[in-house]
Amino acid sequence: MGHEQHQELIRALHECMTACNHCYDACLQEEDIKMMTNCIRLDRECADICSYLEQAICRGTPFSAALTSVCAEICEACGNECKKHAHDHCQRCADACFACADACKSA
Amino acid sequence: MGHEQHQELIRALHECMTACNHCYDACLQEEDIKMMTNCIRLDRECADICSYLEQAICRGTPFSAALTSVCAEICEACGNECKKHAHDHCQRCADACFACADACKSA
Amino acid sequence: MGHEQHQELIRALHECMTACNHCYDACLQEEDIKMMTNCIRLDRECADICSYLEQAICRGTPFSAALTSVCAEICEACGNECKKHAHDHCQRCADACFACADACKSA
Amino acid sequence: MGHEQHQELIRALHECMTACNHCYDACLQEEDIKMMTNCIRLDRECADICSYLEQAICRGTPFSAALTSVCAEICEACGNECKKHAHDHCQRCADACFACADACKSA
Repeated sequence: MGHEQHQELIRALHECMTACNHCYDACLQEEDIKMMTNCIRLDRECADICSYLEQAICRGTPFSAALTSVCAEICEACGNECKKHAHDHCQRCADACFACADACKSA
Repeated sequence: MGHEQHQELIRALHECMTACNHCYDACLQEEDIKMMTNCIRLDRECADICSYLEQAICRGTPFSAALTSVCAEICEACGNECKKHAHDHCQRCADACFACADACKSA
Repeated sequence: MGHEQHQELIRALHECMTACNHCYDACLQEEDIKMMTNCIRLDRECADICSYLEQAICRGTPFSAALTSVCAEICEACGNECKKHAHDHCQRCADACFACADACKSA
Repeated sequence: MGHEQHQELIRALHECMTACNHCYDACLQEEDIKMMTNCIRLDRECADICSYLEQAICRGTPFSAALTSVCAEICEACGNECKKHAHDHCQRCADACFACADACKSA
């Protein structure tokens, strides 16, 4: 991974982690929370793996190939779920998830 | 994953996390620390992914297949490194790593 | 912290982390999820700090006093919330939280 | 915590986590690693609490007062250790740690 790809990946992971935690927090306050349970679950899964990978990349993990691959899978699943919901926080989260999945796949 | 496999996986992850953190702590106190740098690195990688996966399994993550696969890879790498060193903490850590890799692959 | 207190603390943290993640997962499947939102939030807070502290204690953190104090606070808050709900998973989680708070305070 | 303080805290935590992981990775490659063992330990402690707190703040944790307080303590300890070493990565890490401790105390 070149220095620029590394920086871009860190940035994408950080934005995705932020967006997922914000969406998680907002979903728990929605009136239609019953419809948001998968979104709440996937937001946490996605925030946790992005946060994990961010640290791993920063410490020069030798396992970046396997970890970016699983992170891309989780980001896509979370993005697909968020995309279904009209709430602004869900739509913004979906965008961050898809951007992060792309950054993981290019890393 | 059946209930028994689930319990066995949680147990193996917990023991591996414990052994890796103990080995990390002990390596940092060894006289021959220069020879232990890969062990220190891999102990942290392995402790972190085991701790991560333990929580993910406990909350019913939908990504257990991908996560157990990457965890098995990291456990094996850590076990192979620890196996090279005669220190008791390294040998015990290697055993915990290989047992955890097996539990991940059977999950 | 003596060796027995150390082992007891690790055990209590592990059981609390497990119970909180199970309660989190179960709350997200409850019919009355609207009433469970604080429980979902606190289960995650508590699972995350217990998992964090477990690793920190295992690696001989020099910050155990400050970390066990904040963990006890979070465990008590989660236990108090869970105690309000009749669901079995909430009652069991409350017990694990209070036991863990006690272990943190005795450490 | 106002919106600007929140943004500033997230930024400081992220930069401190990045600097600590970079310093950890670089210390493990130093010739004088024997002198760097406390730095390696504290870099990990500090990276882990900053990463933890970043997520907690982003999801609106109700425990921000207790968590920022313990994070400030750990950042200061890590900054004080790093400050002793002339390596560029240690000096840059010390700066990030002290800035993060300040952000935690103002939050």
